[in-house]
Amino acid sequence: MSEAGLDVLGIGNAIVDVLAHGDDDFLAKHGLVKGTMALVDAVEAEAIYAAMGPGLEMSGGSAANTMAGIASLSGRGAYIGKVRDDQLGSVFSHDIHAIGVRFETPAARAGAPTARCLIIVTPDAQRTMQTFLGACVELGPEDIDPKLVQAAQVTYLEGYLYDPPQAQEAFVKAATIAHEAGRKVALTLSDPFCVERHRSAFRELVDGHIDILFANEHEITALYEVNAFDAALQATRGSCDIAALTRSEKGSVVVAGEEVHVIDAEPVTKVVDTTGAGDLYAAGFLYGYTHGLGLARSARAGGIAAAEVISHMGARPETSLADLLKAKLA
Amino acid sequence: MSEAGLDVLGIGNAIVDVLAHGDDDFLAKHGLVKGTMALVDAVEAEAIYAAMGPGLEMSGGSAANTMAGIASLSGRGAYIGKVRDDQLGSVFSHDIHAIGVRFETPAARAGAPTARCLIIVTPDAQRTMQTFLGACVELGPEDIDPKLVQAAQVTYLEGYLYDPPQAQEAFVKAATIAHEAGRKVALTLSDPFCVERHRSAFRELVDGHIDILFANEHEITALYEVNAFDAALQATRGSCDIAALTRSEKGSVVVAGEEVHVIDAEPVTKVVDTTGAGDLYAAGFLYGYTHGLGLARSARAGGIAAAEVISHMGARPETSLADLLKAKLA
Repeated sequence: MSEAGLDVLGIGNAIVDVLAHGDDDFLAKHGLVKGTMALVDAVEAEAIYAAMGPGLEMSGGSAANTMAGIASLSGRGAYIGKVRDDQLGSVFSHDIHAIGVRFETPAARAGAPTARCLIIVTPDAQRTMQTFLGACVELGPEDIDPKLVQAAQVTYLEGYLYDPPQAQEAFVKAATIAHEAGRKVALTLSDPFCVERHRSAFRELVDGHIDILFANEHEITALYEVNAFDAALQATRGSCDIAALTRSEKGSVVVAGEEVHVIDAEPVTKVVDTTGAGDLYAAGFLYGYTHGLGLARSARAGGIAAAEVISHMGARPETSLADLLKAKLA
Repeated sequence: MSEAGLDVLGIGNAIVDVLAHGDDDFLAKHGLVKGTMALVDAVEAEAIYAAMGPGLEMSGGSAANTMAGIASLSGRGAYIGKVRDDQLGSVFSHDIHAIGVRFETPAARAGAPTARCLIIVTPDAQRTMQTFLGACVELGPEDIDPKLVQAAQVTYLEGYLYDPPQAQEAFVKAATIAHEAGRKVALTLSDPFCVERHRSAFRELVDGHIDILFANEHEITALYEVNAFDAALQATRGSCDIAALTRSEKGSVVVAGEEVHVIDAEPVTKVVDTTGAGDLYAAGFLYGYTHGLGLARSARAGGIAAAEVISHMGARPETSLADLLKAKLA
């Protein structure tokens, strides 16, 4: 495959998800905050895993899920992220290749194993995540292939990437190359606690490097330290070209200078597992954006992709999003 | 946990399943025979995996799935099978412990990795399996803990266990210990090709060691080399106390001497993936058998458990079979 004509390059933590059902008591007993992502070390991960029910393993990682969405929409994508050369690393690599996403980041040959995210899905379909970053801490600027960045209309970065130590450098390197090539840079804030951990760095990044910002209500109010969504929405105006802000069942709002679009959520018969909702919203939006659909239709595409992924267990689409979009975005 | 009062001890190949959707063309292209299990070496497994779509990893193994069913029915179970001390081995061990099955077989510390089964689920919900036996070849008679066998009302053996070289010895050792302790021994024939590979050994085993035989139509006719189901059914009479013969949507037939029960299949709204149907039928039946439900109700319990597992992807129950049984077998 040549680098020519990529729609989106995703850069993120390459993770294998371990999903299990659990109840609120389980969360309470292990001090987990529902709906959020917490970082855990190998020992903590082992303890939570031992307490969890039987698991379902599947490839995850926020930006990687977004790339799975782009591929399912028949978009052209590539991904940069770090696994170890172990069994779960092989699973991650196999899956992202199998869906047609270019992925060539060399696996780490020593050090921590491939990252895993222990996901408890509660009966209310909310997911609570404990991430052991493992080999992701090895991702550094040397893993950023300039050719891929230059080839992609949009380079998409996940906020979670601010957790492993060297990834921030990789982040800035990618953004700089992208802008030098006249390309766009997108970021998702990922998680309110992630924003708390890295607020000032995020603020600088958004002001200096980001064209398209994805965030949900909790994340965007955390970033700007405001209480109200509207105040946060105003704050985005000064710092990035486009802000696509998701509000769960209230749909999404897209702000681009004076332009504002309020988009209803796509109806879902039964919400089974919200894992990947934000990732797939970004996939739909970025597919639309890189295919000239305009902001409002891009946001609807995001909603359609998110609705598919929350209707089943797991963070990657199970049906062809291209077909869904054709049917629903006529 | 003490050994006292186990309902069922399962002995089998400890396998992690990798499930992916695929179509008939995929099967044809790779020379796979729909609905069967074929053994593949590491190189063949790698080639098929590379060609498969994105996968879902979850613990499998025929007898282990049966034990998951026993546990879901609130039965007391133990399992003997061999994994390697690697990531997939940890997944297998975690899952079987998490569902409440006793599992203490030491993991192999060298040699081939944990076994995996590459499962293609076609749009007609049929599953076609390619098994790389990996660490299962290390299972031998020394892994059979006599205390577990003596404690279990039924020791349940999977026919697939005849493929790894030393397992047959383990098989006979377990059967001998069970009978010396006045316990019952059950066997599933597993797969028609498995029967072809080991027909004479199976015939001897069934005649000499097996009290309860599980088989589907293809397997039982292959065992007795007859064309008609009725002829096969007659043949079982001379060789084992109870034969529980499954016929997919036609339900099952239980033969015990002069006693014959014909049981309708449990209705299923939508068959999604037939992986594990036979394993869960055996779980329901053996739970019933070890809880004094009688042959006909045990067979119905089998049908109820099988109906649950074919209504979703994967070979282990997703809902409490104990609750299902309470509701449906009133």
